[in-house]
Amino acid sequence: VSQLPLEPAAASDAKLKLLLAYDGTDFRGFVAQPAVRTVEGVLTSALERMLPAPVSLSCAGRTDAGVHAWGQVVTCPAPVTLDPQRVQRSLNAQLGPEVVVRTAELVDRVFDARHSARARSYRYTIVNRDQPDPFLSRYAWWVPGSLDRTLLRLAADPFVGEHDFASFCRRGPVGSTTVRRVRSSTWCELGDGILRYDVTADAFCWQMVRSIVGTLVDAGRGKVRPGDVTGILARRDRAAAGVIAPAHGLCLWAVAH
Amino acid sequence: VSQLPLEPAAASDAKLKLLLAYDGTDFRGFVAQPAVRTVEGVLTSALERMLPAPVSLSCAGRTDAGVHAWGQVVTCPAPVTLDPQRVQRSLNAQLGPEVVVRTAELVDRVFDARHSARARSYRYTIVNRDQPDPFLSRYAWWVPGSLDRTLLRLAADPFVGEHDFASFCRRGPVGSTTVRRVRSSTWCELGDGILRYDVTADAFCWQMVRSIVGTLVDAGRGKVRPGDVTGILARRDRAAAGVIAPAHGLCLWAVAH
Repeated sequence: VSQLPLEPAAASDAKLKLLLAYDGTDFRGFVAQPAVRTVEGVLTSALERMLPAPVSLSCAGRTDAGVHAWGQVVTCPAPVTLDPQRVQRSLNAQLGPEVVVRTAELVDRVFDARHSARARSYRYTIVNRDQPDPFLSRYAWWVPGSLDRTLLRLAADPFVGEHDFASFCRRGPVGSTTVRRVRSSTWCELGDGILRYDVTADAFCWQMVRSIVGTLVDAGRGKVRPGDVTGILARRDRAAAGVIAPAHGLCLWAVAH
Repeated sequence: VSQLPLEPAAASDAKLKLLLAYDGTDFRGFVAQPAVRTVEGVLTSALERMLPAPVSLSCAGRTDAGVHAWGQVVTCPAPVTLDPQRVQRSLNAQLGPEVVVRTAELVDRVFDARHSARARSYRYTIVNRDQPDPFLSRYAWWVPGSLDRTLLRLAADPFVGEHDFASFCRRGPVGSTTVRRVRSSTWCELGDGILRYDVTADAFCWQMVRSIVGTLVDAGRGKVRPGDVTGILARRDRAAAGVIAPAHGLCLWAVAH
């Protein structure tokens, strides 16, 4: 009779789940990379003072350089004896206010921030005024000139549903699909020329939201007709869509698990 | 018959009036000082490329290091032939979005940003939540813990009217008065724990708003009773008031001329 493999040590009998907000300005994105400052990098270093190394994080949204988060979710294996409130206090003391742990809890080890996520919501903010705004310049794309609100809304509608988003994605790994299901795609005007675009999907491919926003702004400027969006989707060609909106206007808003 | 003094040259027959917004985070205040970065310093350098040097600015509010402005007003002598829109475009291209010229116009030379100002309004923002907010940390004071809204409002009322604010001012030049007339002193809650204190007066003495806010927060925490504010004013002693709230929550909101 062969020996059964040992159960994982008690050290990883649970998962630590963190709800994170961060200002992405001074990070080269979420995912750890050698020799550059990333959110995962600073978070892992701080967690390794409290958890058995190496700490391996899973995240719901792999935000790019300069992209912010209000509702990022990350998980990592953790002992059931860990006090999540102590972890939250320690992380916020070390990393706040640039990276803030909004909530921390222990969850079942089958839960995974990435694989258990059912939907992600991103928010893109635009300031449509003649002059930029010093207080929003880190968190919103300044778009001067005329931007037709009706055209913005009409152009946002065709994205809803299941589509191949190849026209709105940078190429991923060979063989990976660019089919995604968008649940909602809406604009909201806050006044003072501040416009918010909220989009929710099961998942997003690389630079998809920024690419959609670039095309929407082209529609608002009258350079693309809302009726053309369906055709741009159908071409499944990155060259068919407009410019990619800058990273600093984008924020990973919420994740549904 | 003695000669009449010559009229000023045509070069200064008018004034340039700028309405400015700036993020004060990386400035050592408005007023130019040797060897440090100030708003007046960068603005004067940029203006001296367009106007006869030396450029001498007058400003409505001498904001301290780290204090922001949405509605700062500055003036300087300028030729009547100057195109203010060209100045605005050039300044915004050089200094934006950290310093933004919201409007630029030529005005009569008797107008002066400082001496013609009839009232200044400052806004102080507080985030009253358990955890800090990465997107508001540059522009709001994070105050965790309980903060009673009713006590905040009751404590703000006694500041209205003409008072000697010696208890709420750092000492100015010898012989200068600390008597000021406060026109309004109000709190507004924006939701999500964001609180705004708006105060308008004919003028403010040094660190007066931050000193008032420090005492108001003490009242909200139950450390000072609203009824004590009148007595603190009457003592005319800096030691009678509470801590000075941090600079980064303060913004020069508007100036009435």
